Amino acid sequence: MAGLETFPNRHPGRDYTIQHTCPEFTAVCPRTGQPDFGTIRVTYVPDRRCVELKSLKLYLQGFRNRGIFYEHVTNLILDELVAAVKPRRMTVEGDFHVRGGISTVVAASYQAPARGKP
Amino acid sequence: MAGLETFPNRHPGRDYTIQHTCPEFTAVCPRTGQPDFGTIRVTYVPDRRCVELKSLKLYLQGFRNRGIFYEHVTNLILDELVAAVKPRRMTVEGDFHVRGGISTVVAASYQAPARGKP
Amino acid sequence: MAGLETFPNRHPGRDYTIQHTCPEFTAVCPRTGQPDFGTIRVTYVPDRRCVELKSLKLYLQGFRNRGIFYEHVTNLILDELVAAVKPRRMTVEGDFHVRGGISTVVAASYQAPARGKP
Amino acid sequence: MAGLETFPNRHPGRDYTIQHTCPEFTAVCPRTGQPDFGTIRVTYVPDRRCVELKSLKLYLQGFRNRGIFYEHVTNLILDELVAAVKPRRMTVEGDFHVRGGISTVVAASYQAPARGKP
Amino acid sequence: MAGLETFPNRHPGRDYTIQHTCPEFTAVCPRTGQPDFGTIRVTYVPDRRCVELKSLKLYLQGFRNRGIFYEHVTNLILDELVAAVKPRRMTVEGDFHVRGGISTVVAASYQAPARGKP
Amino acid sequence: MAGLETFPNRHPGRDYTIQHTCPEFTAVCPRTGQPDFGTIRVTYVPDRRCVELKSLKLYLQGFRNRGIFYEHVTNLILDELVAAVKPRRMTVEGDFHVRGGISTVVAASYQAPARGKP
Amino acid sequence: MAGLETFPNRHPGRDYTIQHTCPEFTAVCPRTGQPDFGTIRVTYVPDRRCVELKSLKLYLQGFRNRGIFYEHVTNLILDELVAAVKPRRMTVEGDFHVRGGISTVVAASYQAPARGKP
Amino acid sequence: MAGLETFPNRHPGRDYTIQHTCPEFTAVCPRTGQPDFGTIRVTYVPDRRCVELKSLKLYLQGFRNRGIFYEHVTNLILDELVAAVKPRRMTVEGDFHVRGGISTVVAASYQAPARGKP
Amino acid sequence: MAGLETFPNRHPGRDYTIQHTCPEFTAVCPRTGQPDFGTIRVTYVPDRRCVELKSLKLYLQGFRNRGIFYEHVTNLILDELVAAVKPRRMTVEGDFHVRGGISTVVAASYQAPARGKP
Amino acid sequence: MAGLETFPNRHPGRDYTIQHTCPEFTAVCPRTGQPDFGTIRVTYVPDRRCVELKSLKLYLQGFRNRGIFYEHVTNLILDELVAAVKPRRMTVEGDFHVRGGISTVVAASYQAPARGKP
Repeated sequence: MAGLETFPNRHPGRDYTIQHTCPEFTAVCPRTGQPDFGTIRVTYVPDRRCVELKSLKLYLQGFRNRGIFYEHVTNLILDELVAAVKPRRMTVEGDFHVRGGISTVVAASYQAPARGKP
Repeated sequence: MAGLETFPNRHPGRDYTIQHTCPEFTAVCPRTGQPDFGTIRVTYVPDRRCVELKSLKLYLQGFRNRGIFYEHVTNLILDELVAAVKPRRMTVEGDFHVRGGISTVVAASYQAPARGKP
Repeated sequence: MAGLETFPNRHPGRDYTIQHTCPEFTAVCPRTGQPDFGTIRVTYVPDRRCVELKSLKLYLQGFRNRGIFYEHVTNLILDELVAAVKPRRMTVEGDFHVRGGISTVVAASYQAPARGKP
Repeated sequence: MAGLETFPNRHPGRDYTIQHTCPEFTAVCPRTGQPDFGTIRVTYVPDRRCVELKSLKLYLQGFRNRGIFYEHVTNLILDELVAAVKPRRMTVEGDFHVRGGISTVVAASYQAPARGKP
Repeated sequence: MAGLETFPNRHPGRDYTIQHTCPEFTAVCPRTGQPDFGTIRVTYVPDRRCVELKSLKLYLQGFRNRGIFYEHVTNLILDELVAAVKPRRMTVEGDFHVRGGISTVVAASYQAPARGKP
Repeated sequence: MAGLETFPNRHPGRDYTIQHTCPEFTAVCPRTGQPDFGTIRVTYVPDRRCVELKSLKLYLQGFRNRGIFYEHVTNLILDELVAAVKPRRMTVEGDFHVRGGISTVVAASYQAPARGKP
Repeated sequence: MAGLETFPNRHPGRDYTIQHTCPEFTAVCPRTGQPDFGTIRVTYVPDRRCVELKSLKLYLQGFRNRGIFYEHVTNLILDELVAAVKPRRMTVEGDFHVRGGISTVVAASYQAPARGKP
Repeated sequence: MAGLETFPNRHPGRDYTIQHTCPEFTAVCPRTGQPDFGTIRVTYVPDRRCVELKSLKLYLQGFRNRGIFYEHVTNLILDELVAAVKPRRMTVEGDFHVRGGISTVVAASYQAPARGKP
Repeated sequence: MAGLETFPNRHPGRDYTIQHTCPEFTAVCPRTGQPDFGTIRVTYVPDRRCVELKSLKLYLQGFRNRGIFYEHVTNLILDELVAAVKPRRMTVEGDFHVRGGISTVVAASYQAPARGKP
Repeated sequence: MAGLETFPNRHPGRDYTIQHTCPEFTAVCPRTGQPDFGTIRVTYVPDRRCVELKSLKLYLQGFRNRGIFYEHVTNLILDELVAAVKPRRMTVEGDFHVRGGISTVVAASYQAPARGKP
């Protein structure tokens, strides 16, 4: 998805957690054209694939000049990461700086449909 | 409601949380005419709509010269936001500065009536 | 009760919490005649009425020159606030300064008798 | 007990908690004759009587030149306070300064035998 | 002065400093009749006399029900302490709680006229 | 055990806890002969006997020139204290400083076999 | 495994926990060849053997010039430590420094198959 | 002086500072007979002699049951330490706990008469 | 300069300082094309003109997609602000996030040539 | 020097400071062959050239597998950076992790010979 690369999870036999924290996220407000800043935090349990860190960086940088709402961008990152890495579980949090005197936090989660015992 | 604008929640398929924190809320005490100051914190799970941030800022600014009690303003913001965005769940907290040597915190919550599985 | 004024709770349809914190409480020790100092914290869920903040301030100031034990004053404030505002639930905490090298905290709670569904 | 005075609990109809903290406790080590220092914390739910603060201060001062182990003094204070105030529940904690490079905390509790509904 | 007692400075041969800090000062606003709260800090180099601590406590308690402005009370305490203890140097600071959203600090100093070498 | 002295628990009728913290523990690494440093924390519920503090200090000092692994010393202290004081419950924690760029914490617990009601 | 040495657990009769924290872990990114830095934390309950600290240090140093992903190295350390010490339970956490503006934490756990009573 | 022992300063060729802090000082108020608590801090530049630590501890313990004002005890400790160790410079600070809602700090210094070059 | 607007300093008769802090500065590394992030802090004493805040924001946003070194951008901001507002003194600090494991701070100052007495 | 690249200082007309902080420095102890870890901090005033950040990173990484003492490496970095960038002034600090229970800080400075007015 949009250049997100993955590599094989070499330890699919166990559930374990990976957390990536990016405090340098920036996009553009679709209303005002002003830049927004915030922290994106991705936490997941991989299944067959893990997200490659450099491609994650480039993927997040891809929002730099894109006009997008906080609520949408947080969910979109979740959707695109889920599509790319097909994790067992994933949460994306966006923690955005003060705009108009108001700070905003958006958090969304994905849970893979239950299969047989993981 | 009073100029609160919303935009479509593009991710209604999942429950996720949005939190807006406004530390610059001010209104007027209906008894004394003195200004009150505090922080308003809104946390919700959207259904079909999200509140647009700039209209939320303007909405909260609309209390600037209005005489209103802490208890009422906190609930009123909850009622008007619920009416405007029809969320699945919402909490509004008002944390008000010292007045007459007393500080005050008011917190109110809304839960949409259960439908079929969310 | 002793000048405690109330105003109608305009939102009786929901349970919500109000917390008032007064760090400037002072009374007089009934043994020694010496002034006592402390913080009074009132937390409650209103039913039909809310306590008016200025009257609460004046009510608490009414103890200024009254000789009363820590244990009694904390419970008395609870009793008189319960009588005045008839809340669904209320807690009063008194956190008193060092006297004779000893600091004291007293906490008491009230729960309205269950009625039909709140 | 050793001069502990009490006064009537004017609110026996409810369970509420009282906590006294005395950071100026001192006694003497029965082995070495050296002074010990620490904090005594008393937390209780009164039944018919409350302990009077000044007599508690004088009672605790009574250990000043007495040789007594940490373990015993903490339990003894509990026993004598229980005997004097007959509380519903009480905990005494002694938090003692470093001696020989070792700090010590002792905590003991009392629960009144169940009667009919408290 | 107003019951301020002193005792002889047994070490007049040297300049040394004494600082008393009272965080439980309270008086009454002469405009509104409302109680004020604050901390009074007295720092001085004694000459022939020191102020006795209990009389200082009672002296400061004497303002409890007196209507007096922040600026005046700080200077008045300085004047009366200077008159009572005739120090070599003295500073009085009053650090008052928020009123109308504003906190206030008042500080005043006294320097005894130069004599021969102290 | 190795000079651990005990004295009678004068309050065996109740379960209460005693915690000793010794931040000055030192032993020798059995591999390298280098000194190790750490904190030993002993928490227990006494039965018939309590450990005497000075003998505990001397006992812990007895490891000063002894070569012993972290894992063993923590368990050994537990075993020897259990043998000496026969507590109802006991936990020993050893929190050891960085060695070779690695810090280590070891924690072990003992529970006396159930008897009739304690 | 790769030089991991163990020594007999002298206290197999009880479950107890050992935690080793190494804030000086470094490896090489397999994509960029750039060095990575982080903290490795190993927590386990030993069964028959404990890991020897110096060999653990050397084992962790063995990654110094090895190209390996965060996800793999955390799991690999878990696998190799499990193989070497056959613990009852073990968790390995890798907490890695910022790369490309993103920090990463990986955590994986092992639980030995249940046997009779441990 | 009252059992203060000293030992030779083996480095009189340089000015260096020594600071002893005793947070367990206690004496008795000469007015009320109530115990006082505080911290005594001694800072000095030795000349020919240093004060021996155990004798300093016993010296300060000697005030335990003695009635003495804060101002006097601070100066007296300075005088007796100066007499015993004849330092180049010395400061004694007494930092006393709250009494009657007032805390007190007393600080006194000594400077040896100038000789030839120190 | 590049849209920097100014307004008249209405108090040129005195030296006073103004500090603007922008924690949301971002530009692009001219080597790698990767985004850089940091905080720009501008401190100055105005002469005839002050910089208008919104134009300063837009001016700093103008670097968002520009390739420029840390050292140059910090000095360039200083030069352009000096040209626009002609201050008596000005300092610009750029505090940049970690890149390649290294964080960087650049600070540059300007001092207007002496005239007659300011 | 060893791959250190520089670029022209575009602002040689003023003295300004640049500080690079690298908390990921690692080298090898020449005695034990064990890795050392620490932070290198470089602060300088450039003259004609600035050090390019990526080459500084690679230069510092070049010590990764080199055996060198703390004192030498700090001075060597200073020497090689001075040779490469010929600054007006430069300080290098090395702040190294605990080894054998001892942490070490080494700091060395360079001052260019005076020319005409800087």
